Amino acid sequence: MLTLYGMSGSGNCHKAALLMHQLGIEHRWIEIDIVHGGSRTPEFLALNPNGKVPTLVFDDGRVLAESNAMLCYLAEGSPLLPDDRWLRALVLQWLFFEQYSHEPYIATVRYWIRYLGKRDEWAVKIAETRTRGYAALDVLETQLRKTPFLVGEAYTIADIALWAYTHVAHEGDFSLDAYPQIRAWLARVEAQPGFMPMISK
Amino acid sequence: MLTLYGMSGSGNCHKAALLMHQLGIEHRWIEIDIVHGGSRTPEFLALNPNGKVPTLVFDDGRVLAESNAMLCYLAEGSPLLPDDRWLRALVLQWLFFEQYSHEPYIATVRYWIRYLGKRDEWAVKIAETRTRGYAALDVLETQLRKTPFLVGEAYTIADIALWAYTHVAHEGDFSLDAYPQIRAWLARVEAQPGFMPMISK
Repeated sequence: MLTLYGMSGSGNCHKAALLMHQLGIEHRWIEIDIVHGGSRTPEFLALNPNGKVPTLVFDDGRVLAESNAMLCYLAEGSPLLPDDRWLRALVLQWLFFEQYSHEPYIATVRYWIRYLGKRDEWAVKIAETRTRGYAALDVLETQLRKTPFLVGEAYTIADIALWAYTHVAHEGDFSLDAYPQIRAWLARVEAQPGFMPMISK
Repeated sequence: MLTLYGMSGSGNCHKAALLMHQLGIEHRWIEIDIVHGGSRTPEFLALNPNGKVPTLVFDDGRVLAESNAMLCYLAEGSPLLPDDRWLRALVLQWLFFEQYSHEPYIATVRYWIRYLGKRDEWAVKIAETRTRGYAALDVLETQLRKTPFLVGEAYTIADIALWAYTHVAHEGDFSLDAYPQIRAWLARVEAQPGFMPMISK
């Protein structure tokens, strides 16, 4: 059975848990408190030298890091990762967009405000970062004006990856008021069979 | 024929050009000066709403963004992207590591110093960012103590992606003196058939 080391309330960690729930892949969850150094212990660093969750461990000892690499591995052969070469390229395009242009701004501001309580102390840094977060939301809105899901007509792991932090963007004081397509898409993702909400502690 | 919009001296752009050179994929290169807003014109944003290079355009008008998505698409069916499901997962793990934990620090400090000339003015920000860059180099060194290439015995697109900015880390004042495995690996990558150095303007 797979073991997922993760933190409740982390969108990156919930991605893999949600996908496994939707695909019926049994796994156990081990809670790691990253705010208090849980991913920086010698034991954890032996598992994942990059010291991050989620970290996925197989029964034979193999270890896979990086949430979006997990999505690709776990969704292989399912409709959530198309076989078509071009559609797969678009799925990957959105997964890399998520990790480079979206998560570092949307998820980071949420983390600073919600987990570290730095809304006022880090106001200048937060304002700069927020601008980039809205730029990422603009890119999503532009795509969702054209297609119901990020890669076209069908729900894929690209939607899981981008939903993960977009649906809690308000916890970082982002407003989705100006993003009607994003709000409709969030609802479509949350209406998928086997959907499982993210529960924060 | 494929068209690659890129900036000379950008590791992200050179990744796709190097891979196409190694695989014998013909393409044309269109130079975009991102330092002076070349990726933010209305024409360019119509092509790629995220306003970034590289951007890959196909003859039929399809557009693919994200350097590492390009590597996966272009390497499909070649030895540089293994068929084996587990090895592919590891390739993707390193590609996401590169974009999340390596490029934002190593490439960014190089950009600030080399392209924007901010070595002194942004010294505090650079010092903070440099720490994270060295953390990424530590992770690479740890892996390369175990295997000659990032995913094992064979050269893959994971090596192309991580080589891209590691080999010019010194242009951001990073020292590789404490990283003998990385230095040996850089030489192994540069000894691959069809290798093409990155030429900066």
